[in-house]
Amino acid sequence: MRVGIIGAGSIGLLFAAYISRVLEVTIYTRTTEQATEINKNGIVLKKKGEQTISFVKSLPITEWKGAEDLTIIAVKQYQLHPIIGKIKQLPVIPNNLLFLQNGMGHLKQLETLPLTNISVGTVEHGALKVNSYTVTHNGEAMTNVAVFKGDSTLLSEFVLSAPIEFPLVLKADYFKMMENKLIVNAVINPLTAILQVKNGELIKNQYYLRVLKNLYSEISMILNIENAEEHQQQIIDICKNTSENRSSMLKDIEANRMTEVDAILGFILEEAQSRDMKAPQVENLYYLIKGKEMIKGANS
Amino acid sequence: MRVGIIGAGSIGLLFAAYISRVLEVTIYTRTTEQATEINKNGIVLKKKGEQTISFVKSLPITEWKGAEDLTIIAVKQYQLHPIIGKIKQLPVIPNNLLFLQNGMGHLKQLETLPLTNISVGTVEHGALKVNSYTVTHNGEAMTNVAVFKGDSTLLSEFVLSAPIEFPLVLKADYFKMMENKLIVNAVINPLTAILQVKNGELIKNQYYLRVLKNLYSEISMILNIENAEEHQQQIIDICKNTSENRSSMLKDIEANRMTEVDAILGFILEEAQSRDMKAPQVENLYYLIKGKEMIKGANS
Repeated sequence: MRVGIIGAGSIGLLFAAYISRVLEVTIYTRTTEQATEINKNGIVLKKKGEQTISFVKSLPITEWKGAEDLTIIAVKQYQLHPIIGKIKQLPVIPNNLLFLQNGMGHLKQLETLPLTNISVGTVEHGALKVNSYTVTHNGEAMTNVAVFKGDSTLLSEFVLSAPIEFPLVLKADYFKMMENKLIVNAVINPLTAILQVKNGELIKNQYYLRVLKNLYSEISMILNIENAEEHQQQIIDICKNTSENRSSMLKDIEANRMTEVDAILGFILEEAQSRDMKAPQVENLYYLIKGKEMIKGANS
Repeated sequence: MRVGIIGAGSIGLLFAAYISRVLEVTIYTRTTEQATEINKNGIVLKKKGEQTISFVKSLPITEWKGAEDLTIIAVKQYQLHPIIGKIKQLPVIPNNLLFLQNGMGHLKQLETLPLTNISVGTVEHGALKVNSYTVTHNGEAMTNVAVFKGDSTLLSEFVLSAPIEFPLVLKADYFKMMENKLIVNAVINPLTAILQVKNGELIKNQYYLRVLKNLYSEISMILNIENAEEHQQQIIDICKNTSENRSSMLKDIEANRMTEVDAILGFILEEAQSRDMKAPQVENLYYLIKGKEMIKGANS
Protein backbone atom coordinates (compact mmCIF):
# COMPACT_ATOMS: atom_id res chain seq x y z
CA MET A 1 0.00 0.00 0.00
CA ARG A 2 1.31 3.43 -0.93
CA VAL A 3 0.30 6.28 1.39
CA GLY A 4 0.22 9.99 0.66
CA ILE A 5 0.18 12.49 3.51
CA ILE A 6 -0.94 16.05 2.81
CA GLY A 7 0.39 18.57 5.29
CA ALA A 8 3.74 18.52 7.06
CA GLY A 9 2.83 20.13 10.37
CA SER A 10 3.28 18.26 13.64
CA ILE A 11 0.65 15.59 12.85
CA GLY A 12 1.70 15.11 9.21
CA LEU A 13 5.36 14.71 10.18
CA LEU A 14 4.43 12.35 13.04
CA PHE A 15 2.35 10.11 10.77
CA ALA A 16 5.00 10.14 8.03
CA ALA A 17 7.73 9.14 10.51
CA TYR A 18 5.78 6.17 11.90
CA ILE A 19 3.82 4.97 8.85
CA SER A 20 6.96 5.01 6.68
CA ARG A 21 8.32 2.22 8.92
CA VAL A 22 5.76 -0.17 7.40
CA LEU A 23 4.46 1.41 4.18
CA GLU A 24 5.74 3.54 1.33
CA VAL A 25 4.95 7.17 2.19
CA THR A 26 5.07 10.42 0.25
CA ILE A 27 4.53 13.61 2.26
CA TYR A 28 3.19 16.70 0.47
CA THR A 29 4.22 20.12 1.80
CA ARG A 30 2.85 23.62 1.34
CA THR A 31 6.24 25.02 0.31
CA THR A 32 8.93 23.69 -2.01
CA GLU A 33 11.52 24.64 0.62
CA GLN A 34 10.06 22.27 3.19
CA ALA A 35 9.96 19.38 0.70
CA THR A 36 13.64 20.02 -0.10
CA GLU A 37 14.52 20.04 3.62
CA ILE A 38 12.68 16.75 4.25
CA ASN A 39 14.28 15.06 1.21
CA LYS A 40 17.70 16.22 2.42
CA ASN A 41 17.42 15.54 6.18
CA GLY A 42 14.70 12.90 6.43
CA ILE A 43 12.06 13.30 9.13
CA VAL A 44 13.63 13.50 12.57
CA LEU A 45 11.41 12.03 15.28
CA LYS A 46 12.28 12.80 18.90
CA LYS A 47 10.77 10.72 21.67
CA LYS A 48 11.84 10.44 25.30
CA GLY A 49 15.33 11.74 24.58
CA GLU A 50 15.84 9.31 21.66
CA GLN A 51 15.97 10.35 18.05
CA THR A 52 15.18 8.38 14.87
CA ILE A 53 15.38 9.48 11.25
CA SER A 54 12.98 8.27 8.55
CA PHE A 55 13.81 8.96 4.94
CA VAL A 56 10.49 9.81 3.36
CA LYS A 57 9.88 11.13 -0.15
CA SER A 58 8.55 14.67 -0.05
CA LEU A 59 6.95 16.80 -2.76
CA PRO A 60 5.21 20.15 -2.78
CA ILE A 61 1.39 19.87 -2.67
CA THR A 62 1.20 21.09 -6.27
CA GLU A 63 2.65 17.71 -7.29
CA TRP A 64 -0.07 15.70 -5.61
CA LYS A 65 -2.08 13.67 -8.15
CA GLY A 66 -3.97 11.43 -5.72
CA ALA A 67 -2.14 8.41 -7.11
CA GLU A 68 -1.46 6.71 -3.74
CA ASP A 69 -3.80 3.99 -2.47
CA LEU A 70 -4.63 6.08 0.58
CA THR A 71 -4.17 9.79 1.18
CA ILE A 72 -4.15 11.14 4.73
CA ILE A 73 -5.13 14.80 4.95
CA ALA A 74 -3.30 16.20 7.97
CA VAL A 75 -3.86 19.94 7.67
CA LYS A 76 -5.83 22.08 10.11
CA GLN A 77 -9.55 22.43 9.48
CA TYR A 78 -9.15 26.06 8.44
CA GLN A 79 -6.62 24.99 5.78
CA LEU A 80 -8.95 22.36 4.32
CA HIS A 81 -10.90 24.47 1.86
CA PRO A 82 -8.24 24.68 -0.92
CA ILE A 83 -7.44 20.97 -0.50
CA ILE A 84 -11.09 20.05 -1.07
CA GLY A 85 -11.05 22.29 -4.14
CA LYS A 86 -7.93 20.58 -5.42
CA ILE A 87 -9.42 17.08 -4.89
CA LYS A 88 -12.46 18.02 -6.96
CA GLN A 89 -10.24 19.18 -9.83
CA LEU A 90 -8.02 16.09 -10.01
CA PRO A 91 -8.26 14.29 -13.40
CA VAL A 92 -8.51 10.92 -11.64
CA ILE A 93 -10.55 10.90 -8.45
CA PRO A 94 -8.56 9.32 -5.59
CA ASN A 95 -10.23 6.31 -4.05
CA ASN A 96 -9.40 6.53 -0.37
CA LEU A 97 -9.01 9.63 1.75
CA LEU A 98 -8.54 9.84 5.53
CA PHE A 99 -9.25 13.22 7.12
CA LEU A 100 -7.64 13.99 10.51
CA GLN A 101 -9.09 17.42 11.33
CA ASN A 102 -10.39 18.46 14.74
CA GLY A 103 -13.94 19.70 15.06
CA MET A 104 -16.93 18.57 13.03
CA GLY A 105 -17.68 21.56 10.84
CA HIS A 106 -15.78 20.04 7.89
CA LEU A 107 -18.02 16.97 7.66
CA LYS A 108 -20.43 18.95 5.50
CA GLN A 109 -17.60 19.70 3.07
CA LEU A 110 -16.67 16.01 2.90
CA GLU A 111 -20.21 15.15 1.83
CA THR A 112 -19.65 17.17 -1.34
CA LEU A 113 -16.68 15.04 -2.44
CA PRO A 114 -17.32 12.61 -5.34
CA LEU A 115 -15.30 9.80 -3.72
CA THR A 116 -16.11 6.25 -2.96
CA ASN A 117 -14.29 5.83 0.33
CA ILE A 118 -13.85 8.62 2.84
CA SER A 119 -12.78 8.04 6.41
CA VAL A 120 -12.12 10.34 9.32
CA GLY A 121 -9.83 10.09 12.31
CA THR A 122 -9.19 11.66 15.70
CA VAL A 123 -5.58 11.92 16.79
CA GLU A 124 -4.90 11.61 20.51
CA HIS A 125 -1.14 11.98 20.27
CA GLY A 126 0.76 14.98 21.56
CA ALA A 127 3.26 16.23 19.00
CA LEU A 128 5.28 19.38 18.53
CA LYS A 129 6.89 20.48 15.27
CA VAL A 130 10.41 21.67 16.09
CA ASN A 131 11.45 22.71 12.59
CA SER A 132 10.46 21.92 9.00
CA TYR A 133 11.60 18.29 9.28
CA THR A 134 11.71 17.57 13.02
CA VAL A 135 8.83 16.56 15.29
CA THR A 136 8.74 15.69 19.00
CA HIS A 137 6.35 12.95 20.05
CA ASN A 138 5.65 13.99 23.62
CA GLY A 139 2.29 12.38 24.26
CA GLU A 140 2.04 8.73 23.24
CA ALA A 141 -1.54 7.71 22.60
CA MET A 142 -3.53 6.40 19.66
CA THR A 143 -5.44 7.41 16.56
CA ASN A 144 -9.10 6.47 16.14
CA VAL A 145 -10.39 6.06 12.61
CA ALA A 146 -13.85 5.34 11.20
CA VAL A 147 -15.57 5.14 7.84
CA PHE A 148 -17.47 8.31 6.96
CA LYS A 149 -18.67 7.13 3.56
CA GLY A 150 -18.02 4.00 1.50
CA ASP A 151 -16.55 0.71 2.70
CA SER A 152 -13.86 -0.13 5.23
CA THR A 153 -11.74 -2.62 3.23
CA LEU A 154 -8.71 -0.45 2.64
CA LEU A 155 -9.05 1.37 5.97
CA SER A 156 -9.04 -1.97 7.84
CA GLU A 157 -5.94 -3.04 5.93
CA PHE A 158 -4.26 0.26 6.86
CA VAL A 159 -5.21 -0.15 10.55
CA LEU A 160 -3.76 -3.68 10.60
CA SER A 161 -0.50 -2.61 9.01
CA ALA A 162 0.16 0.22 11.47
CA PRO A 163 3.32 -0.20 13.55
CA ILE A 164 2.68 -1.45 17.10
CA GLU A 165 4.23 1.70 18.61
CA PHE A 166 1.74 3.88 16.68
CA PRO A 167 -1.64 2.17 17.07
CA LEU A 168 -4.68 2.85 14.90
CA VAL A 169 -8.08 1.83 16.25
CA LEU A 170 -11.02 1.22 13.91
CA LYS A 171 -14.28 2.63 15.29
CA ALA A 172 -17.77 1.71 14.09
CA ASP A 173 -19.50 5.08 14.57
CA TYR A 174 -17.67 8.06 13.10
CA PHE A 175 -20.17 10.54 14.55
CA LYS A 176 -19.77 9.42 18.16
CA MET A 177 -16.02 9.21 17.72
CA MET A 178 -15.76 12.77 16.44
CA GLU A 179 -18.31 14.19 18.85
CA ASN A 180 -16.37 12.67 21.70
CA LYS A 181 -13.17 14.37 20.61
CA LEU A 182 -15.06 17.60 19.93
CA ILE A 183 -16.42 17.77 23.48
CA VAL A 184 -13.00 17.15 24.99
CA ASN A 185 -11.43 19.78 22.75
CA ALA A 186 -14.25 22.26 23.33
CA VAL A 187 -13.73 22.20 27.08
CA ILE A 188 -9.99 21.76 27.55
CA ASN A 189 -8.60 23.80 24.66
CA PRO A 190 -10.28 27.19 25.10
CA LEU A 191 -9.99 27.21 28.90
CA THR A 192 -6.29 26.35 28.89
CA ALA A 193 -5.70 28.88 26.10
CA ILE A 194 -7.49 31.73 27.90
CA LEU A 195 -5.96 30.94 31.30
CA GLN A 196 -2.60 30.02 29.76
CA VAL A 197 -2.26 26.95 31.95
CA LYS A 198 -1.40 23.27 31.42
CA ASN A 199 -4.25 20.74 31.17
CA GLY A 200 -3.83 19.51 34.75
CA GLU A 201 -4.44 22.97 36.22
CA LEU A 202 -8.10 22.80 35.07
CA ILE A 203 -8.79 20.07 37.64
CA LYS A 204 -6.20 20.92 40.33
CA ASN A 205 -7.66 24.39 40.76
CA GLN A 206 -11.12 23.97 42.30
CA TYR A 207 -12.40 27.20 40.73
CA TYR A 208 -11.23 26.26 37.24
CA LEU A 209 -12.83 22.84 37.73
CA ARG A 210 -16.08 24.61 38.46
CA VAL A 211 -15.83 26.56 35.19
CA LEU A 212 -14.94 23.33 33.34
CA LYS A 213 -18.09 21.66 34.68
CA ASN A 214 -20.32 24.66 33.92
CA LEU A 215 -18.97 24.86 30.39
CA TYR A 216 -19.33 21.12 29.84
CA SER A 217 -22.90 21.30 31.10
CA GLU A 218 -23.79 23.93 28.51
CA ILE A 219 -22.07 22.00 25.69
CA SER A 220 -23.69 18.68 26.59
CA MET A 221 -27.12 20.35 26.56
CA ILE A 222 -26.49 21.89 23.14
CA LEU A 223 -25.20 18.64 21.61
CA ASN A 224 -27.83 16.61 23.44
CA ILE A 225 -25.19 14.22 24.79
CA GLU A 226 -26.19 10.83 26.18
CA ASN A 227 -24.30 9.67 29.29
CA ALA A 228 -23.34 13.25 30.08
CA GLU A 229 -21.74 12.32 33.40
CA GLU A 230 -19.49 9.68 31.86
CA HIS A 231 -18.28 12.20 29.32
CA GLN A 232 -17.57 14.73 32.04
CA GLN A 233 -15.52 12.15 33.93
CA GLN A 234 -13.67 11.36 30.71
CA ILE A 235 -12.69 15.03 30.33
CA ILE A 236 -11.48 15.13 33.93
CA ASP A 237 -9.48 11.93 33.39
CA ILE A 238 -7.86 13.38 30.28
CA CYS A 239 -6.84 16.51 32.22
CA LYS A 240 -5.31 14.20 34.81
CA ASN A 241 -3.51 11.94 32.33
CA THR A 242 -2.18 14.86 30.29
CA SER A 243 -1.67 17.20 33.22
CA GLU A 244 1.74 18.42 32.07
CA ASN A 245 0.59 18.99 28.46
CA ARG A 246 -0.13 22.35 26.89
CA SER A 247 -3.20 22.04 24.70
CA SER A 248 -2.89 22.69 20.97
CA MET A 249 -4.97 25.87 21.30
CA LEU A 250 -2.74 27.18 24.09
CA LYS A 251 0.32 26.45 21.94
CA ASP A 252 -1.30 28.18 18.96
CA ILE A 253 -2.09 31.27 21.04
CA GLU A 254 1.41 31.34 22.52
CA ALA A 255 2.94 31.03 19.06
CA ASN A 256 0.56 33.69 17.65
CA ARG A 257 -0.88 31.16 15.23
CA MET A 258 -4.48 30.89 14.16
CA THR A 259 -6.36 28.45 16.42
CA GLU A 260 -8.97 25.79 15.63
CA VAL A 261 -11.63 27.68 17.59
CA ASP A 262 -13.93 27.98 14.59
CA ALA A 263 -13.80 24.22 14.02
CA ILE A 264 -14.46 23.51 17.69
CA LEU A 265 -16.49 26.21 19.49
CA GLY A 266 -17.70 27.71 16.21
CA PHE A 267 -19.29 24.38 15.31
CA ILE A 268 -21.02 24.15 18.71
CA LEU A 269 -22.29 27.74 18.34
CA GLU A 270 -23.80 26.85 14.97
CA GLU A 271 -25.44 23.79 16.49
CA ALA A 272 -26.89 25.98 19.26
CA GLN A 273 -28.20 28.44 16.69
CA SER A 274 -29.78 25.74 14.55
CA ARG A 275 -31.52 24.36 17.64
CA ASP A 276 -32.48 27.85 18.82
CA MET A 277 -30.60 27.40 22.09
CA LYS A 278 -28.60 29.93 24.07
CA ALA A 279 -24.87 29.34 24.52
CA PRO A 280 -23.60 32.23 26.66
CA GLN A 281 -20.49 30.46 27.94
CA VAL A 282 -19.47 28.95 24.62
CA GLU A 283 -20.12 32.26 22.88
CA ASN A 284 -17.98 34.27 25.29
CA LEU A 285 -15.12 31.78 25.16
CA TYR A 286 -15.34 31.78 21.38
CA TYR A 287 -14.99 35.56 21.21
CA LEU A 288 -12.26 35.64 23.86
CA ILE A 289 -10.20 33.24 21.74
CA LYS A 290 -11.00 35.12 18.53
CA GLY A 291 -9.88 38.29 20.30
CA LYS A 292 -6.65 36.63 21.44
CA GLU A 293 -5.98 35.54 17.86
CA MET A 294 -6.24 39.17 16.77
CA ILE A 295 -3.53 40.50 19.05
CA LYS A 296 -0.69 38.75 17.29
CA GLY A 297 2.56 39.41 19.05
CA ALA A 298 0.92 40.36 22.31
CA ASN A 299 1.03 36.87 23.81
CA SER A 300 4.67 36.09 23.51
CA MET B 1 -12.06 69.87 60.57
CA ARG B 2 -9.78 67.03 61.56
CA VAL B 3 -9.76 64.03 59.26
CA GLY B 4 -8.70 60.48 60.01
CA ILE B 5 -7.86 58.09 57.19
CA ILE B 6 -7.85 54.37 57.87
CA GLY B 7 -5.70 52.39 55.45
CA ALA B 8 -2.49 53.51 53.79
CA GLY B 9 -2.75 51.69 50.47
CA SER B 10 -2.80 53.62 47.20
CA ILE B 11 -6.15 55.33 47.89
CA GLY B 12 -5.41 56.10 51.56
CA LEU B 13 -2.04 57.63 50.70
CA LEU B 14 -3.56 59.59 47.78
CA PHE B 15 -6.32 61.06 49.97
CA ALA B 16 -3.87 61.85 52.79
CA ALA B 17 -1.52 63.65 50.41
CA TYR B 18 -4.26 65.88 48.93
CA ILE B 19 -6.58 66.39 51.89
CA SER B 20 -3.65 67.33 54.17
CA ARG B 21 -3.15 70.41 51.96
CA VAL B 22 -6.38 71.87 53.38
CA LEU B 23 -7.25 69.95 56.55
CA GLU B 24 -5.45 68.32 59.48
CA VAL B 25 -5.05 64.63 58.61
CA THR B 26 -3.98 61.57 60.58
CA ILE B 27 -3.42 58.39 58.58
CA TYR B 28 -3.79 55.02 60.34
CA THR B 29 -1.71 52.13 59.09
CA ARG B 30 -1.94 48.36 59.52
CA THR B 31 1.70 48.07 60.67
CA THR B 32 3.75 50.18 63.07
CA GLU B 33 6.60 50.09 60.54
CA GLN B 34 4.57 51.90 57.89
CA ALA B 35 3.49 54.61 60.37
CA THR B 36 7.16 55.12 61.29
CA GLU B 37 8.12 55.41 57.60
CA ILE B 38 5.37 57.96 56.88
CA ASN B 39 6.24 60.04 59.94
CA LYS B 40 9.89 60.01 58.86
CA ASN B 41 9.54 60.60 55.11
CA GLY B 42 6.15 62.24 54.75
CA ILE B 43 3.86 61.05 51.97
CA VAL B 44 5.53 61.37 48.59
CA LEU B 45 3.05 62.09 45.80
CA LYS B 46 4.23 61.66 42.21
CA LYS B 47 2.24 63.18 39.38
CA LYS B 48 3.29 63.79 35.78
CA GLY B 49 6.97 63.65 36.66
CA GLU B 50 6.61 66.09 39.55
CA GLN B 51 6.94 65.11 43.18
CA THR B 52 5.47 66.72 46.29
CA ILE B 53 5.89 65.72 49.91
CA SER B 54 3.14 66.12 52.53
CA PHE B 55 4.02 65.70 56.16
CA VAL B 56 1.08 63.85 57.65
CA LYS B 57 0.80 62.41 61.13
CA SER B 58 0.65 58.62 61.03
CA LEU B 59 -0.29 56.09 63.72
CA PRO B 60 -0.91 52.36 63.68
CA ILE B 61 -4.61 51.44 63.46
CA THR B 62 -4.54 50.19 67.06
CA GLU B 63 -4.23 53.88 68.10
CA TRP B 64 -7.40 54.95 66.30
CA LYS B 65 -10.04 56.20 68.78
CA GLY B 66 -12.43 57.77 66.27
CA ALA B 67 -11.68 61.22 67.69
CA GLU B 68 -11.47 63.04 64.32
CA ASP B 69 -14.50 64.89 62.96
CA LEU B 70 -14.53 62.66 59.90
CA THR B 71 -12.92 59.29 59.34
CA ILE B 72 -12.36 58.03 55.81
CA ILE B 73 -12.16 54.26 55.57
CA ALA B 74 -9.87 53.51 52.64
CA VAL B 75 -9.25 49.77 52.95
CA LYS B 76 -10.37 47.13 50.44
CA GLN B 77 -13.81 45.65 50.96
CA TYR B 78 -12.34 42.30 52.03
CA GLN B 79 -10.35 44.11 54.75
CA LEU B 80 -13.43 45.87 56.12
CA HIS B 81 -14.70 43.25 58.56
CA PRO B 82 -12.18 43.88 61.41
CA ILE B 83 -12.57 47.66 60.99
CA ILE B 84 -16.35 47.38 61.43
CA GLY B 85 -15.73 45.25 64.53
CA LYS B 86 -13.35 47.87 65.90
CA ILE B 87 -15.81 50.72 65.29
CA LYS B 88 -18.47 48.87 67.26
CA GLN B 89 -16.10 48.44 70.20
CA LEU B 90 -14.96 52.07 70.44
CA PRO B 91 -15.84 53.71 73.82
CA VAL B 92 -17.07 56.81 72.01
CA ILE B 93 -18.94 56.21 68.76
CA PRO B 94 -17.46 58.34 65.94
CA ASN B 95 -19.94 60.69 64.33
CA ASN B 96 -18.96 60.74 60.68
CA LEU B 97 -17.56 57.94 58.61
CA LEU B 98 -16.91 57.89 54.86
CA PHE B 99 -16.47 54.47 53.26
CA LEU B 100 -14.61 54.26 49.94
CA GLN B 101 -14.89 50.54 49.08
CA ASN B 102 -15.68 49.17 45.65
CA GLY B 103 -18.68 46.88 45.23
CA MET B 104 -21.92 47.01 47.17
CA GLY B 105 -21.76 43.93 49.36
CA HIS B 106 -20.51 45.96 52.32
CA LEU B 107 -23.60 48.18 52.48
CA LYS B 108 -25.35 45.52 54.59
CA GLN B 109 -22.49 45.69 57.09
CA LEU B 110 -22.77 49.48 57.26
CA GLU B 111 -26.43 49.21 58.23
CA THR B 112 -25.38 47.45 61.42
CA LEU B 113 -23.26 50.39 62.60
CA PRO B 114 -24.70 52.50 65.46
CA LEU B 115 -23.60 55.78 63.88
CA THR B 116 -25.45 58.91 63.08
CA ASN B 117 -23.78 59.88 59.84
CA ILE B 118 -22.41 57.39 57.37
CA SER B 119 -21.47 58.28 53.83
CA VAL B 120 -20.03 56.32 50.95
CA GLY B 121 -17.84 57.27 48.05
CA THR B 122 -16.63 56.01 44.69
CA VAL B 123 -13.08 56.89 43.70
CA GLU B 124 -12.42 57.41 40.02
CA HIS B 125 -8.72 58.23 40.38
CA GLY B 126 -5.95 55.98 39.18
CA ALA B 127 -3.26 55.58 41.85
CA LEU B 128 -0.37 53.21 42.39
CA LYS B 129 1.39 52.65 45.69
CA VAL B 130 5.12 52.63 44.99
CA ASN B 131 6.34 51.94 48.54
CA SER B 132 5.03 52.37 52.09
CA TYR B 133 4.98 56.18 51.85
CA THR B 134 4.98 56.91 48.08
CA VAL B 135 2.01 56.98 45.71
CA THR B 136 1.77 57.79 42.01
CA HIS B 137 -1.32 59.66 40.86
CA ASN B 138 -1.55 58.46 37.27
CA GLY B 139 -5.22 58.93 36.54
CA GLU B 140 -6.62 62.33 37.49
CA ALA B 141 -10.35 62.19 38.01
CA MET B 142 -12.77 62.80 40.89
CA THR B 143 -14.36 61.21 43.90
CA ASN B 144 -18.14 60.96 44.21
CA VAL B 145 -19.61 60.94 47.70
CA ALA B 146 -23.16 60.53 49.00
CA VAL B 147 -24.97 60.16 52.30
CA PHE B 148 -25.81 56.57 53.13
CA LYS B 149 -27.45 57.31 56.49
CA GLY B 150 -27.86 60.47 58.55
CA ASP B 151 -27.44 64.05 57.35
CA SER B 152 -25.06 65.69 54.93
CA THR B 153 -23.92 68.72 56.97
CA LEU B 154 -20.37 67.61 57.66
CA LEU B 155 -20.03 65.78 54.34
CA SER B 156 -21.00 68.96 52.46
CA GLU B 157 -18.45 70.94 54.44
CA PHE B 158 -15.80 68.34 53.59
CA VAL B 159 -16.70 68.45 49.90
CA LEU B 160 -16.43 72.26 49.85
CA SER B 161 -13.04 72.25 51.56
CA ALA B 162 -11.45 69.76 49.12
CA PRO B 163 -8.51 71.17 47.15
CA ILE B 164 -9.38 72.17 43.58
CA GLU B 165 -6.88 69.66 42.15
CA PHE B 166 -8.63 66.81 44.00
CA PRO B 167 -12.37 67.37 43.49
CA LEU B 168 -15.13 65.77 45.57
CA VAL B 169 -18.63 65.70 44.11
CA LEU B 170 -21.68 65.34 46.34
CA LYS B 171 -24.30 63.00 44.88
CA ALA B 172 -27.93 62.78 45.95
CA ASP B 173 -28.51 59.04 45.47
CA TYR B 174 -25.86 56.77 47.00
CA PHE B 175 -27.46 53.64 45.50
CA LYS B 176 -27.33 54.84 41.91
CA MET B 177 -23.83 56.21 42.45
CA MET B 178 -22.51 52.89 43.75
CA GLU B 179 -24.43 50.77 41.29
CA ASN B 180 -22.99 52.82 38.47
CA LYS B 181 -19.45 52.18 39.66
CA LEU B 182 -20.26 48.52 40.30
CA ILE B 183 -21.41 47.96 36.72
CA VAL B 184 -18.32 49.62 35.29
CA ASN B 185 -16.07 47.59 37.59
CA ALA B 186 -17.96 44.37 36.95
CA VAL B 187 -17.40 44.59 33.21
CA ILE B 188 -13.96 46.19 32.83
CA ASN B 189 -12.08 44.67 35.77
CA PRO B 190 -12.61 40.93 35.30
CA LEU B 191 -12.23 41.01 31.50
CA THR B 192 -8.98 42.99 31.61
CA ALA B 193 -7.70 40.75 34.42
CA ILE B 194 -8.47 37.50 32.58
CA LEU B 195 -7.18 38.74 29.24
CA GLN B 196 -4.30 40.66 30.83
CA VAL B 197 -4.90 43.68 28.64
CA LYS B 198 -5.23 47.43 29.18
CA ASN B 199 -8.73 48.95 29.35
CA GLY B 200 -8.63 50.27 25.78
CA GLU B 201 -8.10 46.79 24.32
CA LEU B 202 -11.65 45.82 25.35
CA ILE B 203 -13.09 48.19 22.77
CA LYS B 204 -10.30 48.22 20.16
CA ASN B 205 -10.61 44.46 19.70
CA GLN B 206 -13.99 43.78 18.05
CA TYR B 207 -14.23 40.31 19.62
CA TYR B 208 -13.50 41.55 23.13
CA LEU B 209 -16.08 44.31 22.58
CA ARG B 210 -18.62 41.62 21.77
CA VAL B 211 -17.82 39.83 25.06
CA LEU B 212 -18.04 43.16 26.91
CA LYS B 213 -21.52 43.78 25.49
CA ASN B 214 -22.71 40.23 26.21
CA LEU B 215 -21.45 40.44 29.78
CA TYR B 216 -22.98 43.88 30.30
CA SER B 217 -26.28 42.61 28.95
CA GLU B 218 -26.36 39.81 31.53
CA ILE B 219 -25.41 42.17 34.37
CA SER B 220 -27.96 44.82 33.42
CA MET B 221 -30.69 42.16 33.38
CA ILE B 222 -29.70 40.89 36.83
CA LEU B 223 -29.51 44.38 38.35
CA ASN B 224 -32.60 45.50 36.45
CA ILE B 225 -30.80 48.58 35.15
CA GLU B 226 -32.78 51.48 33.72
CA ASN B 227 -31.27 53.19 30.67
CA ALA B 228 -29.23 50.10 29.92
CA GLU B 229 -27.90 51.50 26.64
CA GLU B 230 -26.64 54.71 28.23
CA HIS B 231 -24.78 52.68 30.80
CA GLN B 232 -23.23 50.52 28.11
CA GLN B 233 -22.06 53.61 26.27
CA GLN B 234 -20.61 54.93 29.53
CA ILE B 235 -18.56 51.75 29.96
CA ILE B 236 -17.29 52.03 26.38
CA ASP B 237 -16.40 55.71 26.96
CA ILE B 238 -14.49 54.82 30.12
CA CYS B 239 -12.49 52.17 28.22
CA LYS B 240 -11.70 54.86 25.66
CA ASN B 241 -10.75 57.54 28.16
CA THR B 242 -8.63 55.18 30.25
CA SER B 243 -7.35 53.13 27.33
CA GLU B 244 -3.75 53.04 28.59
CA ASN B 245 -4.75 52.12 32.17
CA ARG B 246 -4.42 48.71 33.72
CA SER B 247 -7.50 48.02 35.84
CA SER B 248 -7.09 47.50 39.59
CA MET B 249 -8.06 43.84 39.22
CA LEU B 250 -5.47 43.30 36.51
CA LYS B 251 -2.85 44.93 38.73
CA ASP B 252 -3.93 42.77 41.67
CA ILE B 253 -3.66 39.58 39.59
CA GLU B 254 -0.29 40.62 38.20
CA ALA B 255 1.00 41.38 41.69
CA ASN B 256 -0.47 38.11 43.06
CA ARG B 257 -2.69 40.05 45.43
CA MET B 258 -6.24 39.18 46.40
CA THR B 259 -8.72 40.92 44.09
CA GLU B 260 -12.04 42.63 44.80
CA VAL B 261 -13.93 40.02 42.76
CA ASP B 262 -16.11 39.00 45.72
CA ALA B 263 -17.17 42.60 46.26
CA ILE B 264 -17.91 43.09 42.58
CA LEU B 265 -18.96 39.91 40.73
CA GLY B 266 -19.72 38.08 44.00
CA PHE B 267 -22.30 40.74 44.82
CA ILE B 268 -23.91 40.43 41.39
CA LEU B 269 -24.02 36.63 41.73
CA GLU B 270 -25.82 36.99 45.07
CA GLU B 271 -28.28 39.38 43.48
CA ALA B 272 -28.90 36.86 40.69
CA GLN B 273 -29.45 34.11 43.24
CA SER B 274 -31.84 36.18 45.31
CA ARG B 275 -33.84 36.94 42.17
CA ASP B 276 -33.64 33.33 40.99
CA MET B 277 -31.90 34.37 37.79
CA LYS B 278 -29.17 32.59 35.87
CA ALA B 279 -25.81 34.31 35.51
CA PRO B 280 -23.64 31.98 33.41
CA GLN B 281 -21.20 34.63 32.20
CA VAL B 282 -20.80 36.38 35.54
CA GLU B 283 -20.43 33.03 37.29
CA ASN B 284 -17.71 31.81 34.93
CA LEU B 285 -15.76 35.05 35.13
CA TYR B 286 -16.08 34.97 38.91
CA TYR B 287 -14.57 31.49 39.10
CA LEU B 288 -11.88 32.27 36.52
CA ILE B 289 -10.72 35.20 38.68
CA LYS B 290 -10.99 33.14 41.89
CA GLY B 291 -8.89 30.49 40.16
CA LYS B 292 -6.30 33.08 39.09
CA GLU B 293 -6.11 34.31 42.68
CA MET B 294 -5.23 30.79 43.77
CA ILE B 295 -2.18 30.38 41.58
CA LYS B 296 -0.04 32.92 43.39
CA GLY B 297 3.30 33.31 41.76
CA ALA B 298 2.11 31.94 38.44
CA ASN B 299 1.24 35.31 36.94
CA SER B 300 4.47 37.15 37.40
